[in-house]
Amino acid sequence: MKRIRIDCLQYANWSKKIFRQMRAAKLDAVHVTIAYHEGFREAIENLEKWNRMFEDYSDLIFQGFCADDVRLARETNRTAVFFGFQNPSPIEDDIGLIEIWYRLGVRFMQLTYNNQSLLASGCYEETDGGITRMGKEVIEEMNRLGMVIDMSHSGPISTLEAISLSSRPIAISHANPSSWCFSRRNKSEEILTSLADSDGMLGFSLYPHHLENGSKCSLESFCTMIRDTIKLMGPNNVGIGSDLCQDQPNSVVEWMRVGRWTKKIDYGEGSPEQSGFPPMPNFFKDVRGFSHLEKGLQSVGMNKEEINKVLGGNWLRFFDENFVAKTKKIY
Amino acid sequence: MKRIRIDCLQYANWSKKIFRQMRAAKLDAVHVTIAYHEGFREAIENLEKWNRMFEDYSDLIFQGFCADDVRLARETNRTAVFFGFQNPSPIEDDIGLIEIWYRLGVRFMQLTYNNQSLLASGCYEETDGGITRMGKEVIEEMNRLGMVIDMSHSGPISTLEAISLSSRPIAISHANPSSWCFSRRNKSEEILTSLADSDGMLGFSLYPHHLENGSKCSLESFCTMIRDTIKLMGPNNVGIGSDLCQDQPNSVVEWMRVGRWTKKIDYGEGSPEQSGFPPMPNFFKDVRGFSHLEKGLQSVGMNKEEINKVLGGNWLRFFDENFVAKTKKIY
Repeated sequence: MKRIRIDCLQYANWSKKIFRQMRAAKLDAVHVTIAYHEGFREAIENLEKWNRMFEDYSDLIFQGFCADDVRLARETNRTAVFFGFQNPSPIEDDIGLIEIWYRLGVRFMQLTYNNQSLLASGCYEETDGGITRMGKEVIEEMNRLGMVIDMSHSGPISTLEAISLSSRPIAISHANPSSWCFSRRNKSEEILTSLADSDGMLGFSLYPHHLENGSKCSLESFCTMIRDTIKLMGPNNVGIGSDLCQDQPNSVVEWMRVGRWTKKIDYGEGSPEQSGFPPMPNFFKDVRGFSHLEKGLQSVGMNKEEINKVLGGNWLRFFDENFVAKTKKIY
Repeated sequence: MKRIRIDCLQYANWSKKIFRQMRAAKLDAVHVTIAYHEGFREAIENLEKWNRMFEDYSDLIFQGFCADDVRLARETNRTAVFFGFQNPSPIEDDIGLIEIWYRLGVRFMQLTYNNQSLLASGCYEETDGGITRMGKEVIEEMNRLGMVIDMSHSGPISTLEAISLSSRPIAISHANPSSWCFSRRNKSEEILTSLADSDGMLGFSLYPHHLENGSKCSLESFCTMIRDTIKLMGPNNVGIGSDLCQDQPNSVVEWMRVGRWTKKIDYGEGSPEQSGFPPMPNFFKDVRGFSHLEKGLQSVGMNKEEINKVLGGNWLRFFDENFVAKTKKIY
């Protein structure tokens, strides 16, 4: 297998500097969040900003629509940028908007972000009511088109139901096993085995609140966790989803947590003492940390083939199989 | 040249019946209007309705994005449906929306519909101020992407300026020479020669208000007009844009004329005595009228090759050259 590098979740304050770091890291593809709480029209405006960046930095990045765009990126020494939503707010209450977004290149959508949505329950709700009536319809439509269901921020019942209801594999693009680091955002063994059994993907997160010892997490601990997760899930269903929010001001994490749904402060995974973005671990300050991961995985005894799978090969296979419509080429 | 049939402007009350008539007429492609006065979100909703029809009638129609889709339609015995706007209202005041719409498949946009728009003056305005500041930016962006500028409903100065400012050929998708039938919507010899000189296209309209003797226009008169226009413009820059509004209730033509811009009644090309849709001429009650046109053009002495150009070949060549981005493949 070729050396492919994919980061399947980032939400940076995008700039030429970051796009150059991606090239320095030889990152072939990145899945970027283009909406958290935005409605349809607001998310369109975010996409417009990306279109401007694709024009301005066409030597560094371009929009990815299909798996072959990852290969094109590799051939042309650029990074393919795939779009995703962390919340279904951009489809509002309108199932027809899914195909509109698919056509515009959105390839991942979380059914919920921490809170209850129209589709499912978030991981911070006290009651997890599972997939809603509209949620079932949306899963079917996403399955038809080839838009990947992402349950990173969903509650456990909703997540298990999504795996079971979806006729195609789903993704948990950025989370870790809760056995390694307990957090509402990390996932149980039951979920992880169910995910792997259905050929779904887990992207390992580098966000400190999902790490053992937080910002002080060691490379060895992180890589040992990956090795152990492969023992549970097998070598083909794990990748990286760093959750890197590079160069974002703390106002952004506040907005990610509260959007417009409350007038109060909600600290989410943080606390009054640590309300902003936590410092990233030393070995992953930016995407060039992929080279540290490569060495770290070698150090815990993984072979080259397994490492290439984790750092990009598995996501590429998943893109190959899941970004395409069931019946016909849509885009 | 193969026998290709293209109607480059229709706004029917779409139904399975009409799609079947298109197949009976062996129509390979149709340019359909998906917005008159709609804003961005409303036009998206119209597109969603088309997506439902593409799902429901996939054996008869599919969405066309590039010229090769016309060939695919021919091979698979279906009609490729290309989208267009009769007014720039769906881009609102936001130039970034042009690329969004291009990606969604919109291939034609009129810079104005009868009235002044943000971009140009309509043919019913007393003052034709030509292309506006934003209009010039929009022309450049449409040129970049491969979205065709359509000046069917624009004033004469705006139309001439658009031809001159655009770096690519433009279209007048549905109108006739005013020398044959005087109407604010029909076009002067100066415009038609300027259009042909820049390799732009004129689509002959079958809408009675654009015809000599209106609804009573004879096939012979219509076909003679085509033959004479070819003497003026040459054989390569004319096609059909029937302006067929099949099965639409009269409330639709009222809305087309007044949208939300006035509280009064405006009769447009009609009159208090004839306020609704005028009856279509006998030889073009629906798209199967293409076979009458074929015979009519033979009767006025045109040869097979010329007829095939007029009934579709010229539009296909124009699609080949103008639905593609200048620098790279966008869709």
